[in-house]
Amino acid sequence: MKIAVLGTGGGARAHAAKLVDLGHEVYVGTRDPEATLARTEPDMMGNAPYGQWLAEHPGITLKTFGDAAAAADTLVVNGIDGHNAVAALTTIADRLAGKTLVDYAVPFVYEHETEHPWPTPWGVMPKLEPCDTDSLGEQIQRALPATKVVKSFVTQEQTTVVDPKAVGGGDHTMFVAGEDADAKRQVTDLLKAYGWTDVLDLGPLVCARGMEMYAHLHSAIGFGLGQRFGGHFGIKVVR
Amino acid sequence: MKIAVLGTGGGARAHAAKLVDLGHEVYVGTRDPEATLARTEPDMMGNAPYGQWLAEHPGITLKTFGDAAAAADTLVVNGIDGHNAVAALTTIADRLAGKTLVDYAVPFVYEHETEHPWPTPWGVMPKLEPCDTDSLGEQIQRALPATKVVKSFVTQEQTTVVDPKAVGGGDHTMFVAGEDADAKRQVTDLLKAYGWTDVLDLGPLVCARGMEMYAHLHSAIGFGLGQRFGGHFGIKVVR
Repeated sequence: MKIAVLGTGGGARAHAAKLVDLGHEVYVGTRDPEATLARTEPDMMGNAPYGQWLAEHPGITLKTFGDAAAAADTLVVNGIDGHNAVAALTTIADRLAGKTLVDYAVPFVYEHETEHPWPTPWGVMPKLEPCDTDSLGEQIQRALPATKVVKSFVTQEQTTVVDPKAVGGGDHTMFVAGEDADAKRQVTDLLKAYGWTDVLDLGPLVCARGMEMYAHLHSAIGFGLGQRFGGHFGIKVVR
Repeated sequence: MKIAVLGTGGGARAHAAKLVDLGHEVYVGTRDPEATLARTEPDMMGNAPYGQWLAEHPGITLKTFGDAAAAADTLVVNGIDGHNAVAALTTIADRLAGKTLVDYAVPFVYEHETEHPWPTPWGVMPKLEPCDTDSLGEQIQRALPATKVVKSFVTQEQTTVVDPKAVGGGDHTMFVAGEDADAKRQVTDLLKAYGWTDVLDLGPLVCARGMEMYAHLHSAIGFGLGQRFGGHFGIKVVR
């Protein structure tokens, strides 16, 4: 299948590489492909320059956001950071129309973007915006009414999303939420291909709020386990 | 041990009854004991009138909030609803000084208290206040600087907190957070007496944010499992 992955960060790389491994044709979208390839320094999260990573991952085609989205048959993975996602996706709404967009972003507002201090001992708890009475998933759906938005992946590090068996043998739970049952099935099938055995459909997209707001507990659990920038754990819904 | 439970709702009843079962002397606090005992109708959550419940649970002594707190040796369980907790606890700050206060409230703002609509399909997602950049646990600690506040129990229905083996044989995780290591140990010991085998210390009280904000995902999981007012599930941290 032709699948698009929007974004070039660590999470987007994990999905792109895994989708190639699964035999898909992968189109990665970035704002400006030439600028992305011209970078020679690691990004702010310490990821290697994209051009270098791309050379090590044949089978991935780098395009603009819009061209990558247009190249996808039906499935687009949104790896654009939460703070920029609505604006960037709105500009390519026509290319996303009729397609399934799976979104895993947390709408963090980082320190350099706000006056809000980082009040935690581990320094990685930025403010969420929106929060509680709205969610990024719902914002994206409102911005893209012709697209079937599914919120998923967000309760887990993306390296674990594409390789769930790396934690506890894979015996943990992934969630999906969205308004379109077929789109949720499509994302669930992708998750099963990734190795997930327990995918729970929470219901409509309003459940994205709980998934995004779980980011704080996720950070705290990682901290409690001594994994400062970790997340080498899963959560399992025990019935 | 002499333990106080503040509040007469369903969660507080679950703790009071279990603590008696475990052999403790239990003092339940309410705003106005005479008024509490005079009620003959079920409360708004459908719980039986407290006087009737009390008659069926010998070994529990009903007092004012302050007198119950004063009667406790060292441990007080706060079951006052989140919206009223800081105000009610502040009035008895001197009786709580030096003691451990374990708080499990979610700071929900209910529909009748606000203009905020309930936007979910299951109608039970009130707004959280505070949220994200503060928590009720931290607010209580600031209001009671001489008390050792521990946030716990909040990620689970209280009927499951006092009987964890009722869900999945008890193979799921409970969290504690707070500034005082001895107080967290005391709460962890109580949880072990309740039957918990996996109690994770998340760290300082700032982690109460994640625990309280998990309320939305908890509701969504219950909805996804078809448990409209349920919560007959646990979450397990899979390492």
